Amino acid sequence: MSGVAYVNGDFVPLSEAKVSVLDRGFLFGDGIYEVAAVLGGRLIDNEAHLARLERSLKEAALATPVPFAEIPKLQRELIARNALAEGLVYLQVTRGAAPRDFAFPKDAAPTLVMFVQEKNLLCSPAAEAGVAVKTVPDLRWARRDIKSVSLLAQVFAKQEAAAGGCQEAWMTDPAGMVTEGASSSAFIVTKADKIVTRPNSREILPGCTRKAVAALAERCSLEVEERAFSVAEALAAEEAFITSATAFVLPVVSIDGVKIGAGVPGERTRRLREIYIEFALATAE
Amino acid sequence: MSGVAYVNGDFVPLSEAKVSVLDRGFLFGDGIYEVAAVLGGRLIDNEAHLARLERSLKEAALATPVPFAEIPKLQRELIARNALAEGLVYLQVTRGAAPRDFAFPKDAAPTLVMFVQEKNLLCSPAAEAGVAVKTVPDLRWARRDIKSVSLLAQVFAKQEAAAGGCQEAWMTDPAGMVTEGASSSAFIVTKADKIVTRPNSREILPGCTRKAVAALAERCSLEVEERAFSVAEALAAEEAFITSATAFVLPVVSIDGVKIGAGVPGERTRRLREIYIEFALATAE
Repeated sequence: MSGVAYVNGDFVPLSEAKVSVLDRGFLFGDGIYEVAAVLGGRLIDNEAHLARLERSLKEAALATPVPFAEIPKLQRELIARNALAEGLVYLQVTRGAAPRDFAFPKDAAPTLVMFVQEKNLLCSPAAEAGVAVKTVPDLRWARRDIKSVSLLAQVFAKQEAAAGGCQEAWMTDPAGMVTEGASSSAFIVTKADKIVTRPNSREILPGCTRKAVAALAERCSLEVEERAFSVAEALAAEEAFITSATAFVLPVVSIDGVKIGAGVPGERTRRLREIYIEFALATAE
Repeated sequence: MSGVAYVNGDFVPLSEAKVSVLDRGFLFGDGIYEVAAVLGGRLIDNEAHLARLERSLKEAALATPVPFAEIPKLQRELIARNALAEGLVYLQVTRGAAPRDFAFPKDAAPTLVMFVQEKNLLCSPAAEAGVAVKTVPDLRWARRDIKSVSLLAQVFAKQEAAAGGCQEAWMTDPAGMVTEGASSSAFIVTKADKIVTRPNSREILPGCTRKAVAALAERCSLEVEERAFSVAEALAAEEAFITSATAFVLPVVSIDGVKIGAGVPGERTRRLREIYIEFALATAE
């Protein structure tokens, strides 16, 4: 817990970065967050993250305590103050501190918190070894398109995966179809060479890296098919992978202990990771 | 925001009561809470609330930072330090502060926060006038039996009710059946003089006041029927009411703008409120 954090206008040591116990983020999970990757001290695909942040805030009727255009400046200031080369910037907006009552408070100022985490993103052991996935029932609420901090269902899913020796959970709907990963988007590659991922709706989070990878794949003549897929189809797929802001593209080598393809990272997944990283480095700002 | 709060071992002014921005309550809604009413400086039905707290903690694999038996002592100490006569004690346990990662942290100490709110519970204008209810789709997750702080769906429901001039939201499942109130249990009284409320399951929170009122009703020869009821049935009911730790029993006089019964608090609801308050005062400790 070292480094410098940003809390409501102040840059403070992370160890001293605190919010009121009456903050609605703490009492109600009444907040929105975003995570953007940092490579070479620069933000990756940040415009997409800010656009999604703006959308989530609007859906939750939340405001920011600073003009929205100030946010990227604060992100960069935080990266500089932490001399962060590679890792992530975490950002959270909540409805602020107010006497506890469920409905929106009349006059609370929103809370804005940011901090960074150092992390090896390019030289990721998981990119070489692949990740093991565990499927779990999707317990989440009906507005999964809002990137809120009411995340206990995702915490449970990730913990269940970790307890089973897996690095990610794929959540499934009652029909046995995969919705998405607990903190990533889920993809398979079919024998017909198509990249399949569930279409955006209120049932999944609109992944920024998902969107970028889908666009890049099409430019590489890899066909993307947006539809739900079942666990059974995933188990029989040629390849499987996940995308997220900080994982980029990571191969899935097993699901529920069953090897996907040869049980090693697939070629198309490797290629997609490469082209995503090229895009990330070329557009970092 | 006056008064004294308890934060991880310390009694501090509420205005200075803070938690780390890395607290999992703030980042993930990864915490459990309870609210107990206070009358005459004494706790109401607190054993039931502690039993439910223990159950929620177990379901969420959460521990307390102090021995469980210390909690009522801390509640009473907080009541005394605040000289609280009437109101509530709020209590929240989270998985503590740790570097941000979804799965449970290995060595974080849980966070325990408590504060009080003064509130007129006995002489409640709502008990005289009754409350207006708005129905909203139940957006919550699949483990509503856990009293977690991942509450954004309930916040949305309450806000929608408030925006419609209502004091409570009744949430409905896809079949049009009422699950429960956003922060209360939902009841109707039928023409056959039965008190109907949805049975406990993962679809609703097991209400402590709901349980006490049901037991008291049976002692008063009022028959309680545990089954789901539809909005249509509620609109045609003789009476409707809600229960919660701090609302006790409150008459519902309208749902979606439609009067229930004569549009004034019903007689059986009044009686149930009286006998609950008698029980509360007799068993306060």
